Amino acid sequence: MTATGVDRFQGLLSQRAARGPRPPFGGGASTKFRFSAGNPDPGSFPYQELTQAMADVMETDGPNALSYGAVYGHEPLREWVCHKLKVFENLDVSPDNILITNGSGDAIGLIIQTFIDEGDVIITEAPTFSATLQAMRRNGGVLYGIEMDDDGLRMDLLAAKLEELQQAGTPCKMIYTIVNFQNPYGPTLTLERRKELLALAKKYNTIVLEDDAYGELRWEGEPLPSLFALDDAGLVARTGTFSKILGAGTRVGWVIAPSSMVGYLSAFNFGGGVAPLTSRVCLAYMNGHLESHVAELIDIYKNKRDAMLETLEAGLAGTDAAWNKPEGGFFIWLKLPSGTSQKRLLELATAAGIAYALGPSFFPDGGGEEHIRLAFSLESIEAIREGVAILCKLIHEARA
Amino acid sequence: MTATGVDRFQGLLSQRAARGPRPPFGGGASTKFRFSAGNPDPGSFPYQELTQAMADVMETDGPNALSYGAVYGHEPLREWVCHKLKVFENLDVSPDNILITNGSGDAIGLIIQTFIDEGDVIITEAPTFSATLQAMRRNGGVLYGIEMDDDGLRMDLLAAKLEELQQAGTPCKMIYTIVNFQNPYGPTLTLERRKELLALAKKYNTIVLEDDAYGELRWEGEPLPSLFALDDAGLVARTGTFSKILGAGTRVGWVIAPSSMVGYLSAFNFGGGVAPLTSRVCLAYMNGHLESHVAELIDIYKNKRDAMLETLEAGLAGTDAAWNKPEGGFFIWLKLPSGTSQKRLLELATAAGIAYALGPSFFPDGGGEEHIRLAFSLESIEAIREGVAILCKLIHEARA
Repeated sequence: MTATGVDRFQGLLSQRAARGPRPPFGGGASTKFRFSAGNPDPGSFPYQELTQAMADVMETDGPNALSYGAVYGHEPLREWVCHKLKVFENLDVSPDNILITNGSGDAIGLIIQTFIDEGDVIITEAPTFSATLQAMRRNGGVLYGIEMDDDGLRMDLLAAKLEELQQAGTPCKMIYTIVNFQNPYGPTLTLERRKELLALAKKYNTIVLEDDAYGELRWEGEPLPSLFALDDAGLVARTGTFSKILGAGTRVGWVIAPSSMVGYLSAFNFGGGVAPLTSRVCLAYMNGHLESHVAELIDIYKNKRDAMLETLEAGLAGTDAAWNKPEGGFFIWLKLPSGTSQKRLLELATAAGIAYALGPSFFPDGGGEEHIRLAFSLESIEAIREGVAILCKLIHEARA
Repeated sequence: MTATGVDRFQGLLSQRAARGPRPPFGGGASTKFRFSAGNPDPGSFPYQELTQAMADVMETDGPNALSYGAVYGHEPLREWVCHKLKVFENLDVSPDNILITNGSGDAIGLIIQTFIDEGDVIITEAPTFSATLQAMRRNGGVLYGIEMDDDGLRMDLLAAKLEELQQAGTPCKMIYTIVNFQNPYGPTLTLERRKELLALAKKYNTIVLEDDAYGELRWEGEPLPSLFALDDAGLVARTGTFSKILGAGTRVGWVIAPSSMVGYLSAFNFGGGVAPLTSRVCLAYMNGHLESHVAELIDIYKNKRDAMLETLEAGLAGTDAAWNKPEGGFFIWLKLPSGTSQKRLLELATAAGIAYALGPSFFPDGGGEEHIRLAFSLESIEAIREGVAILCKLIHEARA
């Protein structure tokens, strides 16, 4: 087996593949304070209950759980997603509107493949979820970022950009938005702007990809109707997931979409059914635990957010640093004090075993050099207090 | 929520999506004898052992099992795939050569996306696995089929087609082959032809997609070195899966490829890691059970094959029907007696609750009208004897 030394395949890569390989995750081993990725709280995982759920699934549904699954996903799970939407949002949706996916990442990937051809224009919030940007670029999307303010994506700028692109003969094909506790910037899109966004999508004939991985985890403010709920044109596909309300390792998510769109999205999964086993295990746990478990999670993450906010306030007092106070979700977006060297800070933080996400990775077309994103979801409250206090000291050091 | 009634999205589909939606699975409910899909034997599933594996994983590795996973897959599972290759094939491979995927369907899909652009030419066996053909067409592949004989894909025809395509300025980009117990046709590619195929791939500079979902399940004949093992040019990507040796519902498979290809393949999965939980559950079961469980499966499937062969021999004696005697795998490829009406047979079989796979679905560019594929993997030996006896009667009836 000498194949590893020879790379004849390189000359045969597709246009999309030739954009480059994905590197394996670097680092990790020496990271003591993990503030980078949006990993859920491991203390919240229902370990014993999931083992019981597995036993129940094997007992009642074993042959089907271990065989190929239904093309659009396990039907009772599609029904459960509808139930969840009713409970949390009073939204009536049919199982025909639901496609089960390998996490919401897969869901986002399917939507991109279904609508984006090489060279198609996509507008995103700037900053936004970096993995979505990577998938859009991989698929040939041409990306433009639009600023937000405290009410979310700015509609004046969006309208102007849509018009400009239309005039230029390169109309926008898709708008990507994270409406609740925007990742990483933080705001929730107001109801008025949600309606404006949909009016613009209709006027300029664009798909709206509504990413809502965190919507259930709200501890302040009132839930607002989703874009999917408000849409009357069949232009919105919305994604959701068990990653944040049960555990990311299950890799079970979904799309909520016009029923006639479901078959198009599904066609980009190879087949054999998505997650027949883990769908059933998640469902067996969630039946009876949904509301109590989510209430517990909200309590956990609010307390973690508060710990991080307090530590930042203590550690960066007297500087012009700025950060948001999210109503839900996992993240704080931190504008570093002026004069901070990102490069120096990264060296210091890495040496101290502190990981965070670099601002520029969240921007579709440049920016973010003065920002970092801090996730308060994974580490304990004690580790947040300790790690963020150290980080604040290092920020001062990196301003020299 | 009135979105379901309106389809504005239809005008915005990507070129690939515009090839059409995937329909949900039809039928099933009234099917008594399921000979269509390659579903593994439910009696072989280790239900209690998998529950124990889940308990062990939760106990020892819970936080990681329920969080995002490593980009290329769970490292100990990548090591286990190497161990399996050593045990079954005496093949030395590094974990760097392994990418964990959502079943081997996902693995095949990633390889197609990595190498196939709109209009690229692919050569496949004719007939071959229908789901791969669908994924290739979806991604813009232009397909040509090459006949097989009892030694597998015919090298004289392959060489001629490669030359013809090169001369025409549309060189072949990929050769797709199922080397062991070819699905659905049955033969195993001889060692001599394996070497010839690789020489042709090098000469004409094509990727080789080696699909080996069934290779472990061999009850007759000697295992042969895989194309990946024989390749010295870095042109072969090979796929494997737990679907046939543990349970398709786990949706855990892998690619074995040149290590430098792994990052390109991985880039077409959205990220977040593939199957962190089910990878660990499969591994916890397989550690200690691999060889005994596969030995048990070989026994089960050989007996089922024999039952199906005996029933066909009894039921179609005196006709010019023909079928193969596979050395492993799940399928028999049946040439119907001359004069059989496929349409009439399908009506009769459906009415009798018998499902099988229609010949034409397995052909890249036409053919198969005289054939059906019968899977002996799912039904019990009793059901095989009963159902195939009825089917033989219906075949006689459909010849009128």
